[in-house]
Amino acid sequence: MNTASGTEPYFLGIDLGGSRIKTVAVNAVGQTLEQESIPFEDREMEWAGRIQEMVLDLRMRRGWPVAIGLSAPGLAARDARSIMHMPGRLRGLEGLDWQQYLGFPKPIFVLNDAHSALLGEAWIGAAQGLENVFMLTLGTGVGGAAIVDGHLLRGHLGRAGHLGHITLDSSAKNDDVGTPGSLEMAIGNKTLRERSQGRYTSTEALVRDARHGDLPAKALWQDSVRSLAIGINSLINVLDPEAVILGGGIAQAGPDLFEWLTETLQRHEWCPAGLGVRILPASLGDLAGAYGAARQAILSQSGNVGTVSC
Amino acid sequence: MNTASGTEPYFLGIDLGGSRIKTVAVNAVGQTLEQESIPFEDREMEWAGRIQEMVLDLRMRRGWPVAIGLSAPGLAARDARSIMHMPGRLRGLEGLDWQQYLGFPKPIFVLNDAHSALLGEAWIGAAQGLENVFMLTLGTGVGGAAIVDGHLLRGHLGRAGHLGHITLDSSAKNDDVGTPGSLEMAIGNKTLRERSQGRYTSTEALVRDARHGDLPAKALWQDSVRSLAIGINSLINVLDPEAVILGGGIAQAGPDLFEWLTETLQRHEWCPAGLGVRILPASLGDLAGAYGAARQAILSQSGNVGTVSC
Repeated sequence: MNTASGTEPYFLGIDLGGSRIKTVAVNAVGQTLEQESIPFEDREMEWAGRIQEMVLDLRMRRGWPVAIGLSAPGLAARDARSIMHMPGRLRGLEGLDWQQYLGFPKPIFVLNDAHSALLGEAWIGAAQGLENVFMLTLGTGVGGAAIVDGHLLRGHLGRAGHLGHITLDSSAKNDDVGTPGSLEMAIGNKTLRERSQGRYTSTEALVRDARHGDLPAKALWQDSVRSLAIGINSLINVLDPEAVILGGGIAQAGPDLFEWLTETLQRHEWCPAGLGVRILPASLGDLAGAYGAARQAILSQSGNVGTVSC
Repeated sequence: MNTASGTEPYFLGIDLGGSRIKTVAVNAVGQTLEQESIPFEDREMEWAGRIQEMVLDLRMRRGWPVAIGLSAPGLAARDARSIMHMPGRLRGLEGLDWQQYLGFPKPIFVLNDAHSALLGEAWIGAAQGLENVFMLTLGTGVGGAAIVDGHLLRGHLGRAGHLGHITLDSSAKNDDVGTPGSLEMAIGNKTLRERSQGRYTSTEALVRDARHGDLPAKALWQDSVRSLAIGINSLINVLDPEAVILGGGIAQAGPDLFEWLTETLQRHEWCPAGLGVRILPASLGDLAGAYGAARQAILSQSGNVGTVSC
């Protein structure tokens, strides 16, 4: 494969987010050569054109990468060449064959964005070196992914790790995918207005008021964090991690989140032989997906295509 | 390794249950050569002596097996040579090194009983050939195990797959391991007396009355099965199986369980691209654990020691 003269071989990770596209170029030992982040509007496949331009620009300067990984919302197809299911947003993404679209000479490994973020954190972030770990991304909704026994869980339809869609209150109403009283509904920003009787639209404001001693705010925040603890407790019994990684905007609350969460979790967690689970903040921020995609690109060259090991 | 003359090489699966020990001897292609089931009392390690006698008897008649797998309650140690955590019952089991105890010339692969049962079902039972499947054993409590992307989930402490310990009602009281309002509490026999205000101690009797039109019995049974459906729905979003296997005494209820369960699940299940999950009865009954242990014995000879693939 031709690379531009004078440049070293590199691997490209692309992350198609909700409103930004991030790319990271890394060398074979994982050093970052460059990264980029650009905004886009979700109309007429603008995102696809932007990605094409970014890849072309890189190719002009560095030649083709050795391999490309691409992270995007939705469920990745079994052959990992496209996103097979992404209703509602990013029209045109479903079924788009990225190798063909970008004219790349090899298959491009396409991953679900939450899977990719955990792969990134497990590579060079908060989950580095952990063989049993799951991640929750606390934002508008609650996303998730899990690595068990060293394997990133993909599942039959690429849906494994939708950890926000577990029930905590079976008598409550259904969430977007039909799950009653889900973890996502208990702590995601999308229900905050309803949970606060219209008082809040941002968890940041809620946490600030709670910290300053506003009693209703404190009660609501503690209740939300208790729900998160109960959800994590369930997931610990299912997935048996060594650590749990929390990312997304709500995880920025820092001690206001982690202290109350840990205290609540300790009241419920089954600690066989006295061994508990660590709760850690994610460390790669919004670059986790791009790094995970780059990691998958590297793995795809070492006989790991299709297994998504870490 | 010496085998008695005139007998073919065989693999031995041993399942130490709550009140019975089951063994199965299979040949290299998985054909059953013989099986045995004997009762024991849980006192002074009677179970250990019984297993020793059973193995000695087999050895006299067939020589040593090529490999031995052993399934038991509790969490298997990371090196799979013993059960490392089993409080309350089977005193003496924790830390017992089975290779040493039985004087076998190779390591004996020790598995958690629920893990073993699913491995058995995935080998020659209801989950045969499935790469993404989980199993719930509905009895006194609710046990579980999961295979995702072809790997049996073991986890950091061997606890993965404790699927009965997920919360369905976060405001209810804690179960045995600290999980509030768990799936186990919603359908396991251990809470039936309480759930029925003292009227029932056996789910079989409850189901019979429900079938014959007793309205309170019907309401309670439907409520229990709805909880099971909600729990399965959560687990589908986490583990993304192709099918769910139900075993244990309560699964004997047949259509009284499966029809209402399927109907309720359909009201909640997220079916991406219209694809739903099949709910199937287990097919190996109480021999699943012994077959799973035998399967693990075979796998341990083909380079799969420690990975517990299926």
